[in-house]
Amino acid sequence: MTQIRNLLRDLPPPAPEEDFESLLQRPGVKLERIVSHGQATPAGEWYDQEQDEWVMLLAGAARLLIEGEGERPLAPGDALLLPAHCRHRVTWTDPDRPTIWLALHLAAGDETD
Amino acid sequence: MTQIRNLLRDLPPPAPEEDFESLLQRPGVKLERIVSHGQATPAGEWYDQEQDEWVMLLAGAARLLIEGEGERPLAPGDALLLPAHCRHRVTWTDPDRPTIWLALHLAAGDETD
Repeated sequence: MTQIRNLLRDLPPPAPEEDFESLLQRPGVKLERIVSHGQATPAGEWYDQEQDEWVMLLAGAARLLIEGEGERPLAPGDALLLPAHCRHRVTWTDPDRPTIWLALHLAAGDETD
Repeated sequence: MTQIRNLLRDLPPPAPEEDFESLLQRPGVKLERIVSHGQATPAGEWYDQEQDEWVMLLAGAARLLIEGEGERPLAPGDALLLPAHCRHRVTWTDPDRPTIWLALHLAAGDETD
């Protein structure tokens, strides 16, 4: 029987760290669900990734800062592509409810990497 | 400026055909949004795809039939993997509101296909 999984339910309880769960992994492709409960990127730190990342907010609320751009609010349904080495930080997630992200990591440029 | 797009808003109006929009395309990887307004797979037809497909319902309501399995309701947040050649049909989508799908198509098996 094909397994149907609801990504908005059965969430992990609030914890000091965000929850990362791999949903699918193939060479050069990784799909994951991330659940935040108020976490943000530590002050002064940036994500600077080797891979392109397509990300979508499924639930909750967040604020994202991309280097050289202003801080942007993210609401459910908001999606964007963060190219490899596009430095970014999550400056806020809602502390009062879970924020659920869908993140698709893609080998940058060449799929045979 | 990085473009943030809300996939739940600015939907196409109801039309005879479903709306397919490519969000991202790489060798062996295609991410798309599909908007249904009551459409279903025509009677007697099946999807039988060369690629694996991971699909998630973002909004609305649908029913899915996988060959050899019973019909299953899909609600927002429901996600599943349809392996290549897993024959399936969408038997119903809600005629009274948009049903929004996120579909990730992946080259089956070998990423260098």
